[in-house]
Amino acid sequence: MLEQLKKEVCEANVLLSKSDLAVLTWGNVSGIDPTRKYIVIKPSGVPYALLTPEDMVVCSVLGRVVEGRLAPSVDLPTHMVLYERFPEISGVCHTHSVFATAFAQAKKEIVPFGTTQADSFYGNIPCTEPLSENEIRHDYTANTGLSIVKRFKDKDVDYRNSPGCLVANHGVFAWGDSAKRSVETAIIIEQCAKMNFVTLQLDPDAQRISQCLLDEHFARKHGPNKTYGQKGDIK
Amino acid sequence: MLEQLKKEVCEANVLLSKSDLAVLTWGNVSGIDPTRKYIVIKPSGVPYALLTPEDMVVCSVLGRVVEGRLAPSVDLPTHMVLYERFPEISGVCHTHSVFATAFAQAKKEIVPFGTTQADSFYGNIPCTEPLSENEIRHDYTANTGLSIVKRFKDKDVDYRNSPGCLVANHGVFAWGDSAKRSVETAIIIEQCAKMNFVTLQLDPDAQRISQCLLDEHFARKHGPNKTYGQKGDIK
Amino acid sequence: MLEQLKKEVCEANVLLSKSDLAVLTWGNVSGIDPTRKYIVIKPSGVPYALLTPEDMVVCSVLGRVVEGRLAPSVDLPTHMVLYERFPEISGVCHTHSVFATAFAQAKKEIVPFGTTQADSFYGNIPCTEPLSENEIRHDYTANTGLSIVKRFKDKDVDYRNSPGCLVANHGVFAWGDSAKRSVETAIIIEQCAKMNFVTLQLDPDAQRISQCLLDEHFARKHGPNKTYGQKGDIK
Amino acid sequence: MLEQLKKEVCEANVLLSKSDLAVLTWGNVSGIDPTRKYIVIKPSGVPYALLTPEDMVVCSVLGRVVEGRLAPSVDLPTHMVLYERFPEISGVCHTHSVFATAFAQAKKEIVPFGTTQADSFYGNIPCTEPLSENEIRHDYTANTGLSIVKRFKDKDVDYRNSPGCLVANHGVFAWGDSAKRSVETAIIIEQCAKMNFVTLQLDPDAQRISQCLLDEHFARKHGPNKTYGQKGDIK
Repeated sequence: MLEQLKKEVCEANVLLSKSDLAVLTWGNVSGIDPTRKYIVIKPSGVPYALLTPEDMVVCSVLGRVVEGRLAPSVDLPTHMVLYERFPEISGVCHTHSVFATAFAQAKKEIVPFGTTQADSFYGNIPCTEPLSENEIRHDYTANTGLSIVKRFKDKDVDYRNSPGCLVANHGVFAWGDSAKRSVETAIIIEQCAKMNFVTLQLDPDAQRISQCLLDEHFARKHGPNKTYGQKGDIK
Repeated sequence: MLEQLKKEVCEANVLLSKSDLAVLTWGNVSGIDPTRKYIVIKPSGVPYALLTPEDMVVCSVLGRVVEGRLAPSVDLPTHMVLYERFPEISGVCHTHSVFATAFAQAKKEIVPFGTTQADSFYGNIPCTEPLSENEIRHDYTANTGLSIVKRFKDKDVDYRNSPGCLVANHGVFAWGDSAKRSVETAIIIEQCAKMNFVTLQLDPDAQRISQCLLDEHFARKHGPNKTYGQKGDIK
Repeated sequence: MLEQLKKEVCEANVLLSKSDLAVLTWGNVSGIDPTRKYIVIKPSGVPYALLTPEDMVVCSVLGRVVEGRLAPSVDLPTHMVLYERFPEISGVCHTHSVFATAFAQAKKEIVPFGTTQADSFYGNIPCTEPLSENEIRHDYTANTGLSIVKRFKDKDVDYRNSPGCLVANHGVFAWGDSAKRSVETAIIIEQCAKMNFVTLQLDPDAQRISQCLLDEHFARKHGPNKTYGQKGDIK
Repeated sequence: MLEQLKKEVCEANVLLSKSDLAVLTWGNVSGIDPTRKYIVIKPSGVPYALLTPEDMVVCSVLGRVVEGRLAPSVDLPTHMVLYERFPEISGVCHTHSVFATAFAQAKKEIVPFGTTQADSFYGNIPCTEPLSENEIRHDYTANTGLSIVKRFKDKDVDYRNSPGCLVANHGVFAWGDSAKRSVETAIIIEQCAKMNFVTLQLDPDAQRISQCLLDEHFARKHGPNKTYGQKGDIK
């Protein structure tokens, strides 16, 4: 079942590895089918170089394995929460890319200092609050997802305008309208983290981009009046 | 029309990606034909791996699409301004390479601390002033180009001796006598930015290269008495 | 003799080089046979690109060459000590990867600031005390191994929960249940070192991960109740 | 003439580029023939990807082109001085690798903080004094070489124990008993520069390696009692 989605999710996991965002088995990508009944996700602990579409695990949105001989990523419950609470996303990517993870470890949000970030995030790349001991001990991976949802709700951020989040002391979750797009967002987050880091080393008091420039750049790539890219499919 | 130029511009865009100066679709390169009537530029939002010469968009110097089924890069008006005001350039490259963009985000010019930069820039790699709200809201991309022109005019810099500029809060524009050469300048800017960054971390009070050494190195690669390279075409 | 082990050790040395953890001939990997009578190790000073399984040197656990026409790595005595004192390991990797070696040069342990490290190390990545002049002048490489053993004993660290160590002013030793696994640990150490470095640049007062989160992540990848990965061999 | 040497020098220049030590045409490697009458060097300004052994330029040790249709590297006089004053070297490499050049720009020597550097340099990687205006204006490239020679003489350093030098505000010159070996030294210098940089960021007061450990490591790779590597040719 869902052969096309399994292929897309497999390719997105390979893209994650080829983009230098994950060594060994340090990241996982999933996709949800259009009916939003099934999540297809990377199997746990399998090296990217060995992955085939048949290895992908099909789960119900409640986490039951429906098809596949391998166990799904242990991070599946985080993916499940994101698909449930962010109903317009169709792909989720988790990774530990170096610079973004360093921001997560320092519990710092990635402030937009330039148009690079403004092209994709309408403001900060958010960072969650650390989980409580209780949240860690019970349903840790589901609570990881809930801490992302809470961060967006508390500060009234729209997940469609901010397609990813740092999880404090942990790493990155990114999303999009496909598995591939979620990996592209993870690439964007890592690039923004690296640029932000270098900027702060050059000037610890670097100033946030103006609201006006943020509006201009975000609007030209997103929303009804976007001018970037092509109308319809390119090829 | 302009088949050879489309091929060159396509190859220059691919070079930009292979040189690790642009992830996803974060940069664009153009070339102008010898009559200076037509600009050939990357289509907007198309991944480098998919680009073919036929995808390149031919525009009039006023921005009208003359040939091509795809929409041109949204940065076309910046390219147009540079071709108009800098009449000896034949290629323009725009990118968001990490270290150079960090300098642009910190609004710091890249000071020549060594001969590496002196070989290509006769002084600082300049950085523009930020645009006003009005300049952002109306004709933003053309005004981006005009902010570069203004920086060169205000400080009496010759664009032929300084083949590129940082745009505050944004990224890099580089130019040269061909599309390929403009990408090579972008490579130089990124290398100089990285070296300058490390130098400043080692010594925040690092000293600018002496005028005498700047003269020596710039003159040996540029101008009537240059000694670097070969006479005529190599191969 | 030990043809399969020679092949595995050769491949692990090549993996070390391909993982960008060792330039030129700056690292070496060994494996021990299941009877723990023979150590198979990289020959000294041979570039990774030229290595064949036949080049691997078979030594007794006391360091006598048993098979092979080449001299073993000069670091063999360090490997010998580790195999003797850490009886459950079957592979050892030594390297000078940049960020981990910088921590060793600064004589700083790598503190777990996030779950990335907690997935593999149950606490700090340790760093030895510098050797005394006497220890350097007599049996230097064996004493290097003993300084690792001493660090683990002094602070009551279990080598099975902390599969590697920085050697002060020197570099990295990592281990595992196979030659390949020891290289994977070296990859983990370098990634953690780089993340830790960036974290400290962002926040010199960055806080260690909570004990609770450390427990959760370490336990899900290690020990009797681990949930990560697959049961049995994958392929 | 000297076909084998031209092949070796060509391969060494390609190795320089593949080792990420030189972008565009930012480095050059030469070799001297055993009679020390001829220097074979990269032609000026030719991209590494296009180089063939026939492109190499054969010059007399006084700098006259003896064979080849291309002009030699403009840095030839620096190479000439090094071959004349350092009579046991047979290969010279010049490059602008990022971290080493940053140290040269900051006019800081690279102090040995660990055994990585001690394996190849018996002490600091030296840095020259800046040239005077007069030295820049007349015979600049020869004076660059003389500033290296002066640095070694003034501080009584043996060029055989310190196979490379930073040139203030400029970059790296490295040497060895072959063209290839000079490139390997340039690789070592860049790695040491990067490690030293990270070490200083972690601890600005990092301590130099002890004399005893420096002696041990340098001696095991160099001199009559070396234990590293193989006796005779490996393959």
